[in-house]
Amino acid sequence: MGPGRLHALIDGVFAIAITLLVLDLPRPQSSAHLTLDLLHPWPTYVAYAVSFAVLGLLWIEHHGMMGAVRAVNRRFLERTLAFLLFVSIIPWPTAIAASYADQGSQALPAAVLYAGTMMMMGLTFAWGWPYLALHPELVIPAASPALPVGYRRALIGGLAYVVAIAVAFVNTWASFAIDAAIAVYYAISLSPVPGLLQRATRDAAD
Amino acid sequence: MGPGRLHALIDGVFAIAITLLVLDLPRPQSSAHLTLDLLHPWPTYVAYAVSFAVLGLLWIEHHGMMGAVRAVNRRFLERTLAFLLFVSIIPWPTAIAASYADQGSQALPAAVLYAGTMMMMGLTFAWGWPYLALHPELVIPAASPALPVGYRRALIGGLAYVVAIAVAFVNTWASFAIDAAIAVYYAISLSPVPGLLQRATRDAAD
Amino acid sequence: MGPGRLHALIDGVFAIAITLLVLDLPRPQSSAHLTLDLLHPWPTYVAYAVSFAVLGLLWIEHHGMMGAVRAVNRRFLERTLAFLLFVSIIPWPTAIAASYADQGSQALPAAVLYAGTMMMMGLTFAWGWPYLALHPELVIPAASPALPVGYRRALIGGLAYVVAIAVAFVNTWASFAIDAAIAVYYAISLSPVPGLLQRATRDAAD
Amino acid sequence: MGPGRLHALIDGVFAIAITLLVLDLPRPQSSAHLTLDLLHPWPTYVAYAVSFAVLGLLWIEHHGMMGAVRAVNRRFLERTLAFLLFVSIIPWPTAIAASYADQGSQALPAAVLYAGTMMMMGLTFAWGWPYLALHPELVIPAASPALPVGYRRALIGGLAYVVAIAVAFVNTWASFAIDAAIAVYYAISLSPVPGLLQRATRDAAD
Repeated sequence: MGPGRLHALIDGVFAIAITLLVLDLPRPQSSAHLTLDLLHPWPTYVAYAVSFAVLGLLWIEHHGMMGAVRAVNRRFLERTLAFLLFVSIIPWPTAIAASYADQGSQALPAAVLYAGTMMMMGLTFAWGWPYLALHPELVIPAASPALPVGYRRALIGGLAYVVAIAVAFVNTWASFAIDAAIAVYYAISLSPVPGLLQRATRDAAD
Repeated sequence: MGPGRLHALIDGVFAIAITLLVLDLPRPQSSAHLTLDLLHPWPTYVAYAVSFAVLGLLWIEHHGMMGAVRAVNRRFLERTLAFLLFVSIIPWPTAIAASYADQGSQALPAAVLYAGTMMMMGLTFAWGWPYLALHPELVIPAASPALPVGYRRALIGGLAYVVAIAVAFVNTWASFAIDAAIAVYYAISLSPVPGLLQRATRDAAD
Repeated sequence: MGPGRLHALIDGVFAIAITLLVLDLPRPQSSAHLTLDLLHPWPTYVAYAVSFAVLGLLWIEHHGMMGAVRAVNRRFLERTLAFLLFVSIIPWPTAIAASYADQGSQALPAAVLYAGTMMMMGLTFAWGWPYLALHPELVIPAASPALPVGYRRALIGGLAYVVAIAVAFVNTWASFAIDAAIAVYYAISLSPVPGLLQRATRDAAD
Repeated sequence: MGPGRLHALIDGVFAIAITLLVLDLPRPQSSAHLTLDLLHPWPTYVAYAVSFAVLGLLWIEHHGMMGAVRAVNRRFLERTLAFLLFVSIIPWPTAIAASYADQGSQALPAAVLYAGTMMMMGLTFAWGWPYLALHPELVIPAASPALPVGYRRALIGGLAYVVAIAVAFVNTWASFAIDAAIAVYYAISLSPVPGLLQRATRDAAD
């Protein structure tokens, strides 16, 4: 089975998850101080921006992985579904984090839930790479050198959230700062995978 | 008419139904015991996971059926719409089941509604196979041996929920356990349809 | 500009509008009589089914029109956007109709709103056909005989709701029954447009 | 990387943002004067229509830009994500503007938020054009004359909202009228970009 329709499902889930985040932005009813009531829940905007950035960047990274895929089988589809489960769930920890980040002791479970969901999303993404490495019939031949590189990058991304979870028990603001820093890191650093894929394809064409 | 745009509608409805499930996850307001308030509604998470898995697996199974289709007509489109009606409705019985699974006597209607909707989704999916068998002009010729196999698998999937409905009148937890077991069964068992399709296409190429 | 990406937007809006309907199904909180509380708002289910059917069937009809299109220009895109405006708005009159159909005198504005939105959706759909007829550079040449046929069918569909609006002032249930009957009529009757398109293409190939 | 899958994400986010607007239309509960209760929040309908039109027209304009793109790189993807962030957020200022446009002094922050988000959406769209001009490897060669034209048009569209923001401090209704007028202007005026692209491609083919 070609990967075409899987792309459609993945792109759809990402597009919806990214857009559903908007439903949790503050909508004060009959406010007499609208500016204040909009500025007060500022953690909501930060949470929105970080979750949007993580989802967008992960869509780009996942795109890089799918560029190495020439066919999919049922087990690979199921691994992708596990990944999409955590993609689609992101608006939920985002809403919880936005509501409780500045709520004293209740910020701890919110920070753990947020970083924990991000960790699971990263790890289920990472999980796809070794499966591809073990099933060369699913992979564009020239792309196989890219697989361990992609796996390492995805795994580090997922495991970075373990640090955010641990730090939450000391300081929740520091934990959220780590979540944001991970997004910034992946926004700045270029993935070596697409370059590897292109070089490999060029070499194969020579 | 080629099946291309039907794919787009199907993939869109699945992607949205699967992602709208997130709107019903618990969002406690101003909780002073967030961890407890998040853990207490645990049936919600189980219902979320089961519904997500059923939708994801059914998307894969439906994908297998569409792999045999080379053209669609209006009657086939309408059968597909009947199937999509139940796909799109899934977040509703999921929310009801999540709220009432642990509510004593009120769990019975919730369990019947949940298994009943799943049954209708399965049966409207199964309904597509015999239509294809009777309209060979819609089917890739080499794929016709796969049609009765796919029909049997889909019909059994739908009828398994009849058991879940009956069991609900004795024990609602057992009924929900059957719902989950059906999802696990379809996650583990490989559909023979894609294999049949591939073998048939290979034979036709010889 | 080819019509490919317009398809993606149309299919996306239809898939979402059709799936957002689910958010308005009844979700009783802490009910002690769940079966009754689910059965009581029965107009909701009828409204859901009728709106789903109308959207699904209109997607099929619009699909037939787009089968005649080989290129799109900005004015055609804008007409399509006007049509999509009413497609995307459908969950709103559906929710109003579901809440007020059995609310005595308040059922009248609900019935007028429902049929009025459906009428606008039908008329903005119909609006596309004469534009294509006047711009042959956008149309597959063999498809031009299908244009007046498609226009008549779409226009009648839109104008049928004028009857439903007028009847609402006499009897709102009769008005809703006409809304449902229009959906049933379009479900049963085959559009002559796809057949015309196929025959024309076959003739052109001879 | 080809631009195909980026189209899918863009079209998905637009389709969802455009359709989520419906969730904020008035749904009076148990109203005894439904007609009045539906007519009273009339700014909601104007806000809905203006936001729908802006999103639809911007989709068409962005479509024109993507017609010049033959490949995408990570930095271009990230600029597109920044643009999609503001596209996906539009239902939020729309809901705020709809609720507060007729609320006296509280209309000012609502008008500034609305025009400000529109401005950011326009500027992040404009931001893509110079990036393409500086990276000819991403652009269809014949399309390069269209790039400065497209940039100017997009930049003017974004900066027009600066006027709407400034005017809001004098008169909020005038500010909203400017928002609407910008939409009307872009609905009427044809973008020179698609024409330029077509002429350029024709010249290249000669």
